[in-house]
Amino acid sequence: MTRDLSALDDCLAAVDADGYLVDADGTDSNQRYLSGFDAPDPFVTLYVPGEGIHLLVSSLEYGRATKVDGVASVARLVDYDHRDNVTEHGSVAGRARTVATFLADHAVGSAAVPADFPLGVADALRETGVDVTADRTDVVTGVRATKSAEEVEHVREAQRANEAAMAAAEELMREATVEAGVLHHDGAVLTSERVKEEIEVTLLRHGCGLDETIVACGADAADPHDRGSGPLSADEAVIVDIFPRSKATKYHADMTRTFCKGNPSAEMRRRFDVTDEAREAALAALEPGVTGADVHDAVCDVYEDAGYPTLRSDPETEVGFIHSTGHGVGLDVHERPRVSPDGEELRPGHVVTIEPGLYDPSVGGVRIEDLVVVTESGYENLTDYPVEFVL
Amino acid sequence: MTRDLSALDDCLAAVDADGYLVDADGTDSNQRYLSGFDAPDPFVTLYVPGEGIHLLVSSLEYGRATKVDGVASVARLVDYDHRDNVTEHGSVAGRARTVATFLADHAVGSAAVPADFPLGVADALRETGVDVTADRTDVVTGVRATKSAEEVEHVREAQRANEAAMAAAEELMREATVEAGVLHHDGAVLTSERVKEEIEVTLLRHGCGLDETIVACGADAADPHDRGSGPLSADEAVIVDIFPRSKATKYHADMTRTFCKGNPSAEMRRRFDVTDEAREAALAALEPGVTGADVHDAVCDVYEDAGYPTLRSDPETEVGFIHSTGHGVGLDVHERPRVSPDGEELRPGHVVTIEPGLYDPSVGGVRIEDLVVVTESGYENLTDYPVEFVL
Repeated sequence: MTRDLSALDDCLAAVDADGYLVDADGTDSNQRYLSGFDAPDPFVTLYVPGEGIHLLVSSLEYGRATKVDGVASVARLVDYDHRDNVTEHGSVAGRARTVATFLADHAVGSAAVPADFPLGVADALRETGVDVTADRTDVVTGVRATKSAEEVEHVREAQRANEAAMAAAEELMREATVEAGVLHHDGAVLTSERVKEEIEVTLLRHGCGLDETIVACGADAADPHDRGSGPLSADEAVIVDIFPRSKATKYHADMTRTFCKGNPSAEMRRRFDVTDEAREAALAALEPGVTGADVHDAVCDVYEDAGYPTLRSDPETEVGFIHSTGHGVGLDVHERPRVSPDGEELRPGHVVTIEPGLYDPSVGGVRIEDLVVVTESGYENLTDYPVEFVL
Repeated sequence: MTRDLSALDDCLAAVDADGYLVDADGTDSNQRYLSGFDAPDPFVTLYVPGEGIHLLVSSLEYGRATKVDGVASVARLVDYDHRDNVTEHGSVAGRARTVATFLADHAVGSAAVPADFPLGVADALRETGVDVTADRTDVVTGVRATKSAEEVEHVREAQRANEAAMAAAEELMREATVEAGVLHHDGAVLTSERVKEEIEVTLLRHGCGLDETIVACGADAADPHDRGSGPLSADEAVIVDIFPRSKATKYHADMTRTFCKGNPSAEMRRRFDVTDEAREAALAALEPGVTGADVHDAVCDVYEDAGYPTLRSDPETEVGFIHSTGHGVGLDVHERPRVSPDGEELRPGHVVTIEPGLYDPSVGGVRIEDLVVVTESGYENLTDYPVEFVL
């Protein structure tokens, strides 16, 4: 994978560190990005400018680690008497002893580390004389924000699976009958759980997994973090938010649609239309050089002009537009850049969501979310799914 | 949930700390266990002896957080001017400012934290005058090792789903035909990926998810961490290792079986039988008061008596029995206690795997894994699945 690590070099120079050290489990996206290695167990990644990536892994991971493209060296814990260190000093300080010797082998006396580096190992490393500085700028996350063409393709592939899953969810609700105000399918009440199961099975069939999905109806949908549960009601808005991860590439997609089986209230329909208008305003504002804050402001403008509160107009509001406009998507489903009041400058290769929404427990919730990549000339919408409300 | 936090009280007394602080995302099992709160976003948990749990959450999480059983108080980031702190000091030091004020509100001037507490926030907290000590004993993980009856039921439920998934995998291979030495099903080559998909769909249908499954054949199976890929061969051993997590309770199960479609070699058959003997020896050794090391030794005895190398007989061996006998299972799929050379004393309520295995790239791999709970009188095997090799 093509990666421009010059920002990391600058970061190391700025804090006068010899290398950048990550000690994390295999799910840590910064470590995965830097190392290119995907392991189920914790391992250690050391970046040294001019040398590249050195890995320190368990013996079980060694064979696969040596096959990773572009890694400068791979060592095993056993090469540094790790078991003896743990026996003598305990698991945390023992791990630090092992890592300290590994650092010394690479002439690294001072290390910059991610802000979420484990404190126990950091303090124990300091006790052995290693200088450890937490990088509060989150430099690797910043590097990850700009995607290569290959990474954009990974996101696009996950988004195709996402669309298949959304179609499966929509079809279930479209086919449903309404009995006493509640959706029924295949002779049973159609629940949020049933729709989520269909979404997740569809994603699996398309090579993606995910841990959570949101299928939230009525008042549930008025809480943006409620995943939804129980029977789906007719004439109410149902928010479907799907954020799968490709099993092969580990890159995510993210999309939300809001549906209504039956007849939405006039107010709910208005909220849907205003939210779609806010989405279009955000997209119209999106181009390289503007900030995530600018795009967020475009959404707030639409909502406030339509008479709905936002956190910009009222920081204490619990109804209206009560979250950010979007976020970066990549190895993590939420990553930089932010499309929010403190959103940074947007650049070509940034992959972000645009997801305005309105919430009020007495009315329900609506959210419409597209996934886009910023390009040299503007943006490309990676989302190929209609924006329709009433089924 | 019934939890005995006296060990946590002792830990705080030992390091003279006013409280135990966790700052982690919603997937952190220690935080989930302590707080009882399940949130998609990062949040802060503070345990103060005599008071209980105080939570600090985003406004989006506030409503749900206030509904968590047995929480002493819930505050919002906005209550501590979090946005201004981040604007002025950046995301890491700003978060520390917010947390410092929250700690002061609860009269906590010195905090013990987990060993994996984020270094950036810890250092920034120290700069504000808070005394932060990493707990290298991993006290909460130790508390979590002993499961309540309710937690054992959660594991048991996940294990039922696991057995359904294993049955689906076994059935696919049993129904397969053999053409030119390769398994076929439904007119197509039967691959590792196809079997994994069936496993994961079955788990979803039973309320469980998982991110990884191992279906590894032949030489792939000789690497205990290889997840397997490509066509499944006849007459070779196929390791199927499934470790799902219940979506409702978040508790895991874990089970491995090894199958062979066709005729295994005499050596492979012998390895299967010896491994099953090792499994039985481990179970026979299992009772409260023995250590995980004792149980691991029972497995090594069987393998070494049968002429196979172990890491005990040869720490450098890359073939034979090259991993630990087992590990705890709960909110994490790998947690304490260890059933390994440094395994601690086993106590009633410990849920552990027993998973001996033999590996050699020139022969293949075999592993048989049961999930058991230590009881007052011995153990109960939570696994209800036959141990059979040839399909």
